[in-house]
Amino acid sequence: MTDLEPIPNPNPASIGLVAYRDQHFSEPLLLDCGRALEDWSIRYETYGSLNENRDNAILIEHALSGDHHAAGKYSDADPKPGWWDILIGPGKAFDTNRFFIISSNVIGGCRGSTGPGSINAKTGRPYGMDFPIVTVRDMVRAQERLIRSLGITSLAAVCGGSMGGMLSMEWAIRYPGMVRRVMPIATTTLQSPQAIAFDEVGRNAIMRDPLWNQGDYEPGAGPAHGLAVARMMAHITYLSETGMVQKFGRRLRGKDRLDFTFDIEFEVESYLRHQGQSFIDRFDANTYLYLTKALDFFNL
Amino acid sequence: MTDLEPIPNPNPASIGLVAYRDQHFSEPLLLDCGRALEDWSIRYETYGSLNENRDNAILIEHALSGDHHAAGKYSDADPKPGWWDILIGPGKAFDTNRFFIISSNVIGGCRGSTGPGSINAKTGRPYGMDFPIVTVRDMVRAQERLIRSLGITSLAAVCGGSMGGMLSMEWAIRYPGMVRRVMPIATTTLQSPQAIAFDEVGRNAIMRDPLWNQGDYEPGAGPAHGLAVARMMAHITYLSETGMVQKFGRRLRGKDRLDFTFDIEFEVESYLRHQGQSFIDRFDANTYLYLTKALDFFNL
Repeated sequence: MTDLEPIPNPNPASIGLVAYRDQHFSEPLLLDCGRALEDWSIRYETYGSLNENRDNAILIEHALSGDHHAAGKYSDADPKPGWWDILIGPGKAFDTNRFFIISSNVIGGCRGSTGPGSINAKTGRPYGMDFPIVTVRDMVRAQERLIRSLGITSLAAVCGGSMGGMLSMEWAIRYPGMVRRVMPIATTTLQSPQAIAFDEVGRNAIMRDPLWNQGDYEPGAGPAHGLAVARMMAHITYLSETGMVQKFGRRLRGKDRLDFTFDIEFEVESYLRHQGQSFIDRFDANTYLYLTKALDFFNL
Repeated sequence: MTDLEPIPNPNPASIGLVAYRDQHFSEPLLLDCGRALEDWSIRYETYGSLNENRDNAILIEHALSGDHHAAGKYSDADPKPGWWDILIGPGKAFDTNRFFIISSNVIGGCRGSTGPGSINAKTGRPYGMDFPIVTVRDMVRAQERLIRSLGITSLAAVCGGSMGGMLSMEWAIRYPGMVRRVMPIATTTLQSPQAIAFDEVGRNAIMRDPLWNQGDYEPGAGPAHGLAVARMMAHITYLSETGMVQKFGRRLRGKDRLDFTFDIEFEVESYLRHQGQSFIDRFDANTYLYLTKALDFFNL
């Protein structure tokens, strides 16, 4: 077993069936860029119960390509549970017998919270590139409204990895009185120039795809090739060089010798193409642009 | 001064005006892929003089984006000398007062040697993707013919960096009797899975660009966007993370504060876009596909 294979779930107990909720806000959200979101909403899920003191809530922050669906299933037929089901549930690390877990999709996202794919009330069309630039701080500003709307003024913890780790730290700094613990994972206090560079290449892959069309595309008809290239490249940065040697080496894909073609020769090529293809089925290109910009601007 | 700025030339003496030559071969070159090049040629330059014993020749091998023009200028009006002018010339490291320097463009290239942009005699049109896959070993096979055609049977040295380092080592292993010294620089004995992965993303950026058109495009009308994305990404891998922090950090481009737009905000973004743009003016997308495949297949 290598470090890249899924870790077997030592505790299969699940929170069971869950449902998301949308919280609407009509009071404008002022943003770092100077603009404001007039009408906006956040999609979120909760697991477990808020106690009487309303002080057992933990906020979970997803990474760039994640969303609010962190645990449980939407129906028994659902093939997969939420992305952190291994850690969230009765008796698990985030113990729903003790804690009230809140998982929120960020603004700017493409999974239900207001983002570039949402309808702009002023035009009746998706925002596209008219959506304002949002920062990690703006995402946290929005979440603070959500948390207060739930009647919570003190979070037991804010926890997340990668972009979610940035949000966790931002929470602790902007609202220290509301956060008793912060658990940032695999993250940074500022985006490095190398990370900015990779993000810029990914954005170029999308924005140079003719189907991007300045961000004005119908749902499902966006710049799939550009988005796939961006994701393939990003996936290399999620693995260490050592991990790639262990997982793939120079192993050929389903054969013993080279074919000397431009088709897939190596396992690692097959892996990347799969990552690119599966991403375009579940993610929006404009959101990719907005969220990578938020990462690049991050500098605590 | 950072490690990424050009090193001042401590010895400006130049070899002066130079000219390239094309050596044609009509005897087929059998390739690793099983196919053969029937008619083919190599473009090369030489600096200095071959001695009477014909044993003072040094073969210089260029990197992926390089070519045969390693030293001197083609005319006095030429703004820049060859890519290794700092090291090749009278009294320099590769001293043309003592050595006969040979610099050869590889087959598969786009700078004069036979490659995918060359005319296929059977069709009267550029090969495009009908060009056979070539390996580093094939490039060296072709160069061995060139060296013998110059009446040379013993090279004082073979030297190059990156892809050129691969060719240098391949020379020493395939033709040990012809190579007295080998100087591989910044190279590897086998392409790592991470390097294969980056190459595969670059190829995807090109092959998913509609203007690539299965490799069938007019000169100058190829997949410029895909090639630029491939080059931008590759350029990140040519720099270390530490070097990028020193060279760029999070410095903004020509301003004191963020604009919160999708235009260039950071210096590093400007640098990458420039690298992408300047590359499409001097390099061919199909050659990029073929040469990266040759790198990926390399495994001494």
